[in-house]
Amino acid sequence: MKIKYKLTKKDNNCNARLGVIETKYGNYETPMFMPVGTLANIKTLVPEEVKNEGAGIILSNTYHLWLRPGDGIIKEAGGLHKFMNYDGPILTDSGGFQVFSLAKNKKKDITEDGVHFKSHIDGSNLFLTPEKSIQIQNNLDSDIAMSFDECPPASADYNYLKNSVERTLRWAKRGKMVHNNPNQALFGIVQGGAYEDLRKLSATKTVEMDFDGYAVGGVANDGESKEDMYKAIDYSIPYLPENKIRYLMGVGEPIDILEGVERGIDIFDCVLPTRIARHGNAFTKYGKINLRNKKYERDFTSIDSECDCYTCRNYTKAYIRHLLVSKEVLAGRLLSIHNIRFLIKLTEDIRKSIKNDNFIEYKKQFIKNYGGCKDEIK
Amino acid sequence: MKIKYKLTKKDNNCNARLGVIETKYGNYETPMFMPVGTLANIKTLVPEEVKNEGAGIILSNTYHLWLRPGDGIIKEAGGLHKFMNYDGPILTDSGGFQVFSLAKNKKKDITEDGVHFKSHIDGSNLFLTPEKSIQIQNNLDSDIAMSFDECPPASADYNYLKNSVERTLRWAKRGKMVHNNPNQALFGIVQGGAYEDLRKLSATKTVEMDFDGYAVGGVANDGESKEDMYKAIDYSIPYLPENKIRYLMGVGEPIDILEGVERGIDIFDCVLPTRIARHGNAFTKYGKINLRNKKYERDFTSIDSECDCYTCRNYTKAYIRHLLVSKEVLAGRLLSIHNIRFLIKLTEDIRKSIKNDNFIEYKKQFIKNYGGCKDEIK
Repeated sequence: MKIKYKLTKKDNNCNARLGVIETKYGNYETPMFMPVGTLANIKTLVPEEVKNEGAGIILSNTYHLWLRPGDGIIKEAGGLHKFMNYDGPILTDSGGFQVFSLAKNKKKDITEDGVHFKSHIDGSNLFLTPEKSIQIQNNLDSDIAMSFDECPPASADYNYLKNSVERTLRWAKRGKMVHNNPNQALFGIVQGGAYEDLRKLSATKTVEMDFDGYAVGGVANDGESKEDMYKAIDYSIPYLPENKIRYLMGVGEPIDILEGVERGIDIFDCVLPTRIARHGNAFTKYGKINLRNKKYERDFTSIDSECDCYTCRNYTKAYIRHLLVSKEVLAGRLLSIHNIRFLIKLTEDIRKSIKNDNFIEYKKQFIKNYGGCKDEIK
Repeated sequence: MKIKYKLTKKDNNCNARLGVIETKYGNYETPMFMPVGTLANIKTLVPEEVKNEGAGIILSNTYHLWLRPGDGIIKEAGGLHKFMNYDGPILTDSGGFQVFSLAKNKKKDITEDGVHFKSHIDGSNLFLTPEKSIQIQNNLDSDIAMSFDECPPASADYNYLKNSVERTLRWAKRGKMVHNNPNQALFGIVQGGAYEDLRKLSATKTVEMDFDGYAVGGVANDGESKEDMYKAIDYSIPYLPENKIRYLMGVGEPIDILEGVERGIDIFDCVLPTRIARHGNAFTKYGKINLRNKKYERDFTSIDSECDCYTCRNYTKAYIRHLLVSKEVLAGRLLSIHNIRFLIKLTEDIRKSIKNDNFIEYKKQFIKNYGGCKDEIK
């Protein structure tokens, strides 16, 4: 079955909204944070661990799986769920962002047909088209597929963005034409940088094509300002239908999630929780802390006394610091669990606050606390 | 409470024996394989995973924990069990082997008092004595502590070994004098290379000191032949009391475990299952296979269809190969689980065969199969 979205409640004081995504694996409430399993695994973790921390939909990357192990192998394995042992909903991105961010030397040749670029692994010539992206996602058999979009750099000017929006619309149409997996939802992506008219154009025309959900794209590029990200959402949301999922791609900073929810976003994904974990960082309500810090050497308390994750229930800061200093990969694993739980718990608390019509107050309180810790090391 | 050993049965046709180790965490049958958690973690794994695969006693390393995080910190944490979240029995080695194998540039100055050497981490001057080793193990609060022994190189001649045996006896006595943890068992270590008279001397005199158990040491050095290992056991066992645990240190190759059991050994430890896992290797009944091998690219079967481990119940060779090729650490984790289970299952099957007085036949069958696979990559 294809996923279905139901809007269940709107906050009285802002655009924040509650919803339910019905899937063959069960129902999941939104707003939701989706952990990322780039290469068919959420780095260092097994599916059971992620589910135990409350994960619903997870994300995996079309571009990466196309290259390794190849979507043909995953199809032969019985699809991505079976291959990676995840019996829950999976969203696959389109590869558009990876073509933009990972192409070797960032060189690519964008034609109307698709994008020619070189593999980030071995420099070999690759060619990705809207049709190919959909075909790969069909082979992966994810629950939600994304349209292939052109991701412009943060520095792109108005004319570049306008061309890009128009091309992305043509690509969305082509992708939709070849999409024929009745069990897979297909989402469109709104582009247009921080320009109101371009976002309006992109959103309106994308919605006309009637996708199963809509993403706000082009907001997670290096060098993009927070203000531009918020503008991109503000300028897109009014043109998106209420009865469809709204997805803010690549965003996972707690404050950005709150800003997104306030503006009407339902789902988020980001590699942040696992990436910062590998560098020893943990989310706390007072901001990120780095467990390598000498001050945790004899700190026999958990990362966060209020956290209910596996890591916080069983391990101390002193132990995790020891693992980090000793370069034991278990450190990254324990921190990944905590950080994923932190973002999932954040969305749980957000949902509670929307139920009580006090999201704005919850957000204010959260932001007031957050940023109190200053020992993050990238 | 201190652990207790009970011999429950001897195989009718060889020295193989069944026993039970009673601990405050429960009773565990021997022969047993003990997974190794060098730096207070079994690399990539959490305690629950190791227990789920049937682990009883695990081993941790005194030398490594002395340096990182320091035994003082572990004592403050409430002991090693609490620090690493393992509520099962832990054996700590004495550091003697690490001083021998890890000292920077392998240079060390062995005096009657103890060993001066340089840290393998930062080259700083270190001094380990029999008393210090026991004191560290006391702080770690392990369930079984080992006497500090001198580990001679495999190339040592008779006179070197004789001196070493005599010094190890004096050191064992000194360690025993200062040991005062009533809940911690203390084991003596038999040395003497492959010389019958030295093993006899070492075993007899060590047993005279009345330890809680006895290890056969000096058998896991680089360059030592299998024949010398078997001789070392054969020459030691006759002088060890039947009512005490016999421990073959650092041995984990399946065939060596079988050879040890046949000669009357009860417990084994080795980093092998986790170390070979990190290089992509898996134990199977037909020998080790390396999952990086191209031939597993589309092999959608588990590593071993008869294996009941978490990995084999949930993942295919193709998936693990994909993780290995993609350099995902989850590969090492899944293979560690399988390899640990393999050795634990081996000891379970060994115990069954001893119960039925057909260990010799079981061993013959196992060895006949094992070695059929040749694609191991170190």
